[in-house]
Amino acid sequence: MSGNPSTEFAPKLNGDGPDYFGYYPGAVAVISSRHGPDINVMSAGWHTALSQQPPLYGVAIAPERFSYRLVKESGQFVVNFLPFSRVEAVAGAGLLSGKDVDKYSRLDLSWTASARDLPLLDDAYMSYECEVVDEVETGDHSLFVGAIQTFHYLPQAFEGRVQNAVQVPPVAYYGRSTYEALGSGQKKVLPPQLFRDNDRKA
Amino acid sequence: MSGNPSTEFAPKLNGDGPDYFGYYPGAVAVISSRHGPDINVMSAGWHTALSQQPPLYGVAIAPERFSYRLVKESGQFVVNFLPFSRVEAVAGAGLLSGKDVDKYSRLDLSWTASARDLPLLDDAYMSYECEVVDEVETGDHSLFVGAIQTFHYLPQAFEGRVQNAVQVPPVAYYGRSTYEALGSGQKKVLPPQLFRDNDRKA
Repeated sequence: MSGNPSTEFAPKLNGDGPDYFGYYPGAVAVISSRHGPDINVMSAGWHTALSQQPPLYGVAIAPERFSYRLVKESGQFVVNFLPFSRVEAVAGAGLLSGKDVDKYSRLDLSWTASARDLPLLDDAYMSYECEVVDEVETGDHSLFVGAIQTFHYLPQAFEGRVQNAVQVPPVAYYGRSTYEALGSGQKKVLPPQLFRDNDRKA
Repeated sequence: MSGNPSTEFAPKLNGDGPDYFGYYPGAVAVISSRHGPDINVMSAGWHTALSQQPPLYGVAIAPERFSYRLVKESGQFVVNFLPFSRVEAVAGAGLLSGKDVDKYSRLDLSWTASARDLPLLDDAYMSYECEVVDEVETGDHSLFVGAIQTFHYLPQAFEGRVQNAVQVPPVAYYGRSTYEALGSGQKKVLPPQLFRDNDRKA
C-alpha cells in the first residue's frame, strides 16, 4: 500500500443527474415467478441480501416488466443463480419479454415445480424460494423484499460455505451486454441482436 | 447448451431457516460517512442500484454498526468502490469498528472532503455521494435508500461505460474472508486475525 495512494489515481472526473454509471459488475440473479396460468423468468442485475436473521433477499423489478405483475399478484418469487455455462440464457432472460415469448422454451430453460408450486430452474446452482413481505417503490423500480422460505443448492458449487467459482463459475454482469465468469475472468459479449427472432430466423 | 441440462447438476440439497447461504459473491461497497466530529468507513457486501431515473442506490447497514448512526443522523453517505490493490483495506473496513479505532489511519485510507463535506476515498475508482431518501427496516439490517447527488470516477477504470476490470480490478467478496479480483479471478484470503491489534503488535 502506498503512503500517498491518491496520486496514482488522480485526476478523477465528476458527474451528476442521469449521467451516472458504474452500477456493475455483480452476479446476475434470474427471477422465476408464476401466477395462475402465467409463468415467466427474467434476469435482474439489481438485487441484494437484506437480512441474515430472518433471511431476507431483495430484488428490484421495473413495473413495466411482465414479471412485476406475476410477483406482485402471487406474492412469491424465486431467486435463481445460473452458472456461466448458461450465460446465453441469462442474457436472453434479461432481453426478451415474457409478454411476447415463452422464455423458458426459447432459452432452453427447464424447470421443476417446488412444493410451493414455484418454478425452480433446473440449471441453477442456488435457488431461494421467497415470499414477498414488502414492496418498496424506488424511482423507476420496485424493490420486492422476499422472506426466504427454502433454498436449493448444488453441493459441488460450494466449498464449506464459500462459492467454488472454479467448479461452478457464477455469471457477473458488467452492463452493455458484457458478462464475466467469476473465478477466471473469462468474458463474453452477448448483444441484443442475438435474441431477436428475425436474426434467428435469418 | 444441453438438451437436458438438469442432469449435470442433480442432485441438489435443500435447506431453510438460518442455515441458508450463498449471498455472495459480489463487488464490495465501502461506505464512508460523517456526522459532526465523527467520521467512519465500513465495507458493505449487501448493496444494489435501485433506480436509474432518478438515480438511487441502496445499502444495507446493521443498526449496531458505528456507521449506522452517522448515516442516520447526517442523512448522507458515500458509496465508494476500491480496486483490488486495496483489498486489505476493504477487508479491514469490514472487520474493525469505528467505535474502537480510527479506521482511516489504521488502514491507510486517505480521503478528501467533497463540496458536501463528505469523505471521498482517494483510492476509490468510483464514489457516489448520496442523500438518504428512505430507510427500510429489513430484519437485522436497515436498507438506506440514497439519492445519488454527484459521482466521482476514474476514467481509466471504465471503457465507454463498462468497467475495465483488467485496468482497475474491482474487489468481489465471497464470504468467509475470501476475496477475488474481478477480471482475472485472482484470490486472496484475509482472515480477521490480520486486523487484531494484538497480532499486529506481536
